[in-house]
Amino acid sequence: MIILIIGGSASQNLAAKVANLLDEQLCPIETRRFPDGERYVRIKDEISDEVVVIQSTGYPQDENFMELFFIIKNLKDIGAKKVKVVIPYLGYSRQDKRFKPGEAISVKIIAELLEAAGADEIFSINLHEHKIIEFFNILAHDLSAIPLLAEHLSSKVDDPVIIAPDKGALDYAKTMANIIGCEYDHMEKTRISPERVETRIKNLDIEGKSAIVVDDIISTGGTIVNASRILKDQGAREIRVACVHPVLVDDALLRIFSAGVDDVIATDTIKSEVSVVSVAPLIAETLKNG
Amino acid sequence: MIILIIGGSASQNLAAKVANLLDEQLCPIETRRFPDGERYVRIKDEISDEVVVIQSTGYPQDENFMELFFIIKNLKDIGAKKVKVVIPYLGYSRQDKRFKPGEAISVKIIAELLEAAGADEIFSINLHEHKIIEFFNILAHDLSAIPLLAEHLSSKVDDPVIIAPDKGALDYAKTMANIIGCEYDHMEKTRISPERVETRIKNLDIEGKSAIVVDDIISTGGTIVNASRILKDQGAREIRVACVHPVLVDDALLRIFSAGVDDVIATDTIKSEVSVVSVAPLIAETLKNG
Repeated sequence: MIILIIGGSASQNLAAKVANLLDEQLCPIETRRFPDGERYVRIKDEISDEVVVIQSTGYPQDENFMELFFIIKNLKDIGAKKVKVVIPYLGYSRQDKRFKPGEAISVKIIAELLEAAGADEIFSINLHEHKIIEFFNILAHDLSAIPLLAEHLSSKVDDPVIIAPDKGALDYAKTMANIIGCEYDHMEKTRISPERVETRIKNLDIEGKSAIVVDDIISTGGTIVNASRILKDQGAREIRVACVHPVLVDDALLRIFSAGVDDVIATDTIKSEVSVVSVAPLIAETLKNG
Repeated sequence: MIILIIGGSASQNLAAKVANLLDEQLCPIETRRFPDGERYVRIKDEISDEVVVIQSTGYPQDENFMELFFIIKNLKDIGAKKVKVVIPYLGYSRQDKRFKPGEAISVKIIAELLEAAGADEIFSINLHEHKIIEFFNILAHDLSAIPLLAEHLSSKVDDPVIIAPDKGALDYAKTMANIIGCEYDHMEKTRISPERVETRIKNLDIEGKSAIVVDDIISTGGTIVNASRILKDQGAREIRVACVHPVLVDDALLRIFSAGVDDVIATDTIKSEVSVVSVAPLIAETLKNG
């Protein structure tokens, strides 16, 4: 069966890589803006019964989501039977509960709109919370790019320790450590006095060690900067940072390197200058087995 | 029955005016951006069974639509029984058919997404094509702000002629002329030779007259600039321009005034420096009778 791959404007390069790995055809799409700012979307070729749309939803999130809705609904309108949607980075994932009364649970709304647009199956990578999957009534998959990051790093570092900057990232550290074959730990906040909270590495001694800090998202970089300072204080020989989604708000990278980090690597779920690991093999493999 | 009025970030001022005219309560809403660009929406008060949301969808269209989806879905989620949605300017209205194969019929998709978001009834103003109403399965209304523009102008001009810059705007010119009590006409393209198309006023002699050019939308201003040049050539004493939706891309206003136009007026369906006529009375009156 022929499966067409369509890349939205945020994931053109990634879509081409996936199509190449799968030996499937990349469907030409025209997507541009009118002078007034409105998006124009056109599928330029005959479509197959099954179509895969790849579109990441980092900044500008709203434009990327609207373009994705237009592509999916249009595909259904012109006859696609099944539309699989790959969203390498799912924007709005951090608004996944009502922290205060009256708040929009944005990622739940996004899930419902994707379904209303006609998506039949969703694939995303390292969702900020795995349970976001439950907001979808259609089949949804939460893939992990941590093994790809681990494989990339394993040839580059000698006897490292993997550090999760907080407890929420501990699973990522554990997965990475198991693949590289090394120790891992996480940082922990301890209340020293009513006024003072201290963050420290829970168990490991990292004196003279090469540390790899791993997290799912780097946004403003605040968490990483804080972790790096502590690792420096504790005598780490070298600090590398690995993340899946390089959101990298404003001068985040500058702040991270200024804090003494030696290298930052990320995947291409979001385009950035540190996106050295492609998730294309992960997406291609998953689609092949689906 | 208490009806709450909620204004999206593109229509805060308009929502306040409508609430005031209806003597209804304006519901406080918090809507802002996270550092990474994601929209945060929170309804800050108890809600009533019936809620009216007012949000225009000019530039930035995608952000305004996404915010609107978030507001509507969130209202339904926190218990609103009926959500009436007022979209003074409906973005994407000019992509209302498939001009080339494979094109997204964007405004149809928007209609379906609004419904999926939970809108129960839609009110918009001077839709670019009235038949856009048929894309909605829910009750939808296409109000006209032309009478408001006509009333505003009638005290300012003496014995004008109303000119539609093309045949598509003829109904607007007719409505305006009937209210002001004056003549109207439209401009027409005539093919002079295989290579040459000439635009001229169909019947009326406008020598020494005060002309009012009326259209629904001014976007780049090209149509208005062209019409103004012809009116100047034909000896118009004065040229005024009236439109409902001042989209006004880039330097549109500059181009229009440079073409010799004496005054431009528009409504506040979209915020602009020429939005001197408010559609609040039209919206308030319609909601009162609904």
